[in-house]
Amino acid sequence: MPLWKIYHPVGAYSPEDKKAISQALSDVYGRGMPRFYVGVVFQEVAADAFYIGGEPRNDFVRIWVDHIARTFASDDVKVRFFEKMNKIFAPYVADRGYGWELHVDETPFDLWTIQGYFPPREGTEDEKRWMAENRASPRTHA
Amino acid sequence: MPLWKIYHPVGAYSPEDKKAISQALSDVYGRGMPRFYVGVVFQEVAADAFYIGGEPRNDFVRIWVDHIARTFASDDVKVRFFEKMNKIFAPYVADRGYGWELHVDETPFDLWTIQGYFPPREGTEDEKRWMAENRASPRTHA
Amino acid sequence: MPLWKIYHPVGAYSPEDKKAISQALSDVYGRGMPRFYVGVVFQEVAADAFYIGGEPRNDFVRIWVDHIARTFASDDVKVRFFEKMNKIFAPYVADRGYGWELHVDETPFDLWTIQGYFPPREGTEDEKRWMAENRASPRTHA
Repeated sequence: MPLWKIYHPVGAYSPEDKKAISQALSDVYGRGMPRFYVGVVFQEVAADAFYIGGEPRNDFVRIWVDHIARTFASDDVKVRFFEKMNKIFAPYVADRGYGWELHVDETPFDLWTIQGYFPPREGTEDEKRWMAENRASPRTHA
Repeated sequence: MPLWKIYHPVGAYSPEDKKAISQALSDVYGRGMPRFYVGVVFQEVAADAFYIGGEPRNDFVRIWVDHIARTFASDDVKVRFFEKMNKIFAPYVADRGYGWELHVDETPFDLWTIQGYFPPREGTEDEKRWMAENRASPRTHA
Repeated sequence: MPLWKIYHPVGAYSPEDKKAISQALSDVYGRGMPRFYVGVVFQEVAADAFYIGGEPRNDFVRIWVDHIARTFASDDVKVRFFEKMNKIFAPYVADRGYGWELHVDETPFDLWTIQGYFPPREGTEDEKRWMAENRASPRTHA
């Protein structure tokens, strides 16, 4: 459900870094939804292909996310979410001297399939099974 | 109008596969709108740059789409749309052992231009001309 | 805030071209918001990875933008915005024989951080400071 797209400088992250970031994100989301919902794509962007305010940057990480399965219930929840993200990313951005920017869009729940199945609604028996098995399967409950 | 972005494993698809997928999508959309509205971008993602639930995957196709020209009129239309997509993609995902996930966002019709022109509204004379000529041209009808 | 993603043919733009486009965009937005809000990512797409209406294209520029900090106040403002974009891009698309398409999405202001900070609202003292200093900093005004 969340699809994370992380644009980063060439060579900024090792496979171990990328796996660690993806696992930290999956840990946060996985408390409340199937862990396999969490997709993360890392993409290197060369300095001459990335500009902030008209200047080429080789020290900036630009992250953008699509949220599908959930919308934030309140401002408080939003703030806590971004506080968690700040903690997860601090070692990979600020601590390495990179600037960073992050924004999230919310896209329609009804326009989403995994393995061709429409994912179950939050809190349903079907979702519990998807969480327990960590994979998509046909709906069995109405 | 629809902009399809298909993240896929390195080497997963030949140029013939990609053209066939793009043509199948254009056939579906092209019944009701100019065929040249259908844009499809394929992007290889290395296994160490793509993670699902915190694990690197070299066998997963992640598709995400922006719909601009149309919004779905009913739940029934949505379901039929995804059923068509399942048929189109089956030979390229499930039949090749790939997992896959697809989500669609709907973006504002008014914030979209082709060749610098605002596309005509659905069902107008201008749209009929765009369909017939399969190209953008200045508006001629009010 | 705006995140511009410019898919273009391989080799279409020199670093000078890319910087010039990014600066022209930053000039437009920078009149009303901090200049460093303007992010632009250029991405080469090979002809066999890009299809319009089912046909491979090596002469098409596909631009898509997320607007976060602002929404358009009226239809008139929208039209003027796209007129400005047409002027900026004419030398890089039509004048070089490329087709092009551009669409903008608007994403939630509340789901956006820079350097871990929620950006200040339009017209606030904090935003004026961000503009003057051309960088993010902690909120100092309520």
